[in-house]
Amino acid sequence: MSDTRLTVGGLVYPGFELLDLFGPLEMFSLLGAERVAIHLIGKTAGPVPAAVTADIVAGPKAVADFGYFDAPKLDVLIIPGGFGTFPALTDDALLDYLRATAGTGTLLASVCTGAALLAKAGLLDGKRATTNKQFFSLVRNQRDAVDWVEAARWVDADQFVTASGVSAGMDMALAVIARLFGNDVADGVAVAAEYTWHRDADHDPFVAHLDELAG
Amino acid sequence: MSDTRLTVGGLVYPGFELLDLFGPLEMFSLLGAERVAIHLIGKTAGPVPAAVTADIVAGPKAVADFGYFDAPKLDVLIIPGGFGTFPALTDDALLDYLRATAGTGTLLASVCTGAALLAKAGLLDGKRATTNKQFFSLVRNQRDAVDWVEAARWVDADQFVTASGVSAGMDMALAVIARLFGNDVADGVAVAAEYTWHRDADHDPFVAHLDELAG
Repeated sequence: MSDTRLTVGGLVYPGFELLDLFGPLEMFSLLGAERVAIHLIGKTAGPVPAAVTADIVAGPKAVADFGYFDAPKLDVLIIPGGFGTFPALTDDALLDYLRATAGTGTLLASVCTGAALLAKAGLLDGKRATTNKQFFSLVRNQRDAVDWVEAARWVDADQFVTASGVSAGMDMALAVIARLFGNDVADGVAVAAEYTWHRDADHDPFVAHLDELAG
Repeated sequence: MSDTRLTVGGLVYPGFELLDLFGPLEMFSLLGAERVAIHLIGKTAGPVPAAVTADIVAGPKAVADFGYFDAPKLDVLIIPGGFGTFPALTDDALLDYLRATAGTGTLLASVCTGAALLAKAGLLDGKRATTNKQFFSLVRNQRDAVDWVEAARWVDADQFVTASGVSAGMDMALAVIARLFGNDVADGVAVAAEYTWHRDADHDPFVAHLDELAG
């Protein structure tokens, strides 16, 4: 850890999905201010809009505390998906930031279509990974060199952890917390959030909806 | 509805709990930009920090799109809880905004300790309501005239809907969406969020933790 506290970042880009980002950050926030510091990271410091489905700037705005070039060293970076993921796939500054962050040993944890960004950056080559069920092929088609897993709530490939759609990010975050702080701490976080933690990474309740929207 | 679209507001005040706010707003955002507009409302327009447990300004910042005095008419207002709730109980401008908003017929939906704000504003007198389990008595002690329900995932009292802690807000939001758009639409939202919807308002998996932290 870069400090006595765990330093957790959340990536923000126009059209990120609210719960992909703030579900996992909620779980980390419940570790308490003595154990964790949370920062939002964007292209530059300042407000960034979330998506409302089909409109990538219609949602609430979050404030990036840092830009890519002045962001602190992170222990964990949460990479949300959302309707803004697809235009972000051609954003070289974002992909470079992901590669540079991975190079410092940060644990990179994607939610939903956020896995497409890690894949496009080449960070998942030869690794197991998963993503949103309803848009699975759209993500898979970004990178053949990834070992895409259809049926998984999340996939833990050590430095790169990828969650299925939206809500799955909360289950993944609890698993990362369990890895870093132990099961009892993760259980306490789930109870404080009144969250019924889906603990089995391999059980995927939504795989029946594979490619329902993405074709 | 104030427009052809549903207008949903999210209240922000220093130390709000991230998932209390963004869990419900995620569910509304999945209705799509053609059916819903989402705005954050604060004391004034501008950035407002969320809580990291025990520190009400340590969390990510969201941007209030409007202040209380220029906020649009809302169909639904989400009222999050969080460690910032307790100082907010003496914020007359906030309580006045809740009363004024209720007066226009807006559906007011609280999550977690957000119910304390509705109670303190006098809006829940004589009504059934619930709140966070671990801090139940702290909230109940704000107002005797409320019919506080210990075991409930959420309580639907028509114009005022109150959810239990944090994650329960997502279940409540889906129930509100089902009321406004029908069950099939709410089911579609839950699947798009890959969220296992807890549908029974009366089943409370966390009531065993009543007052665990608040004593």
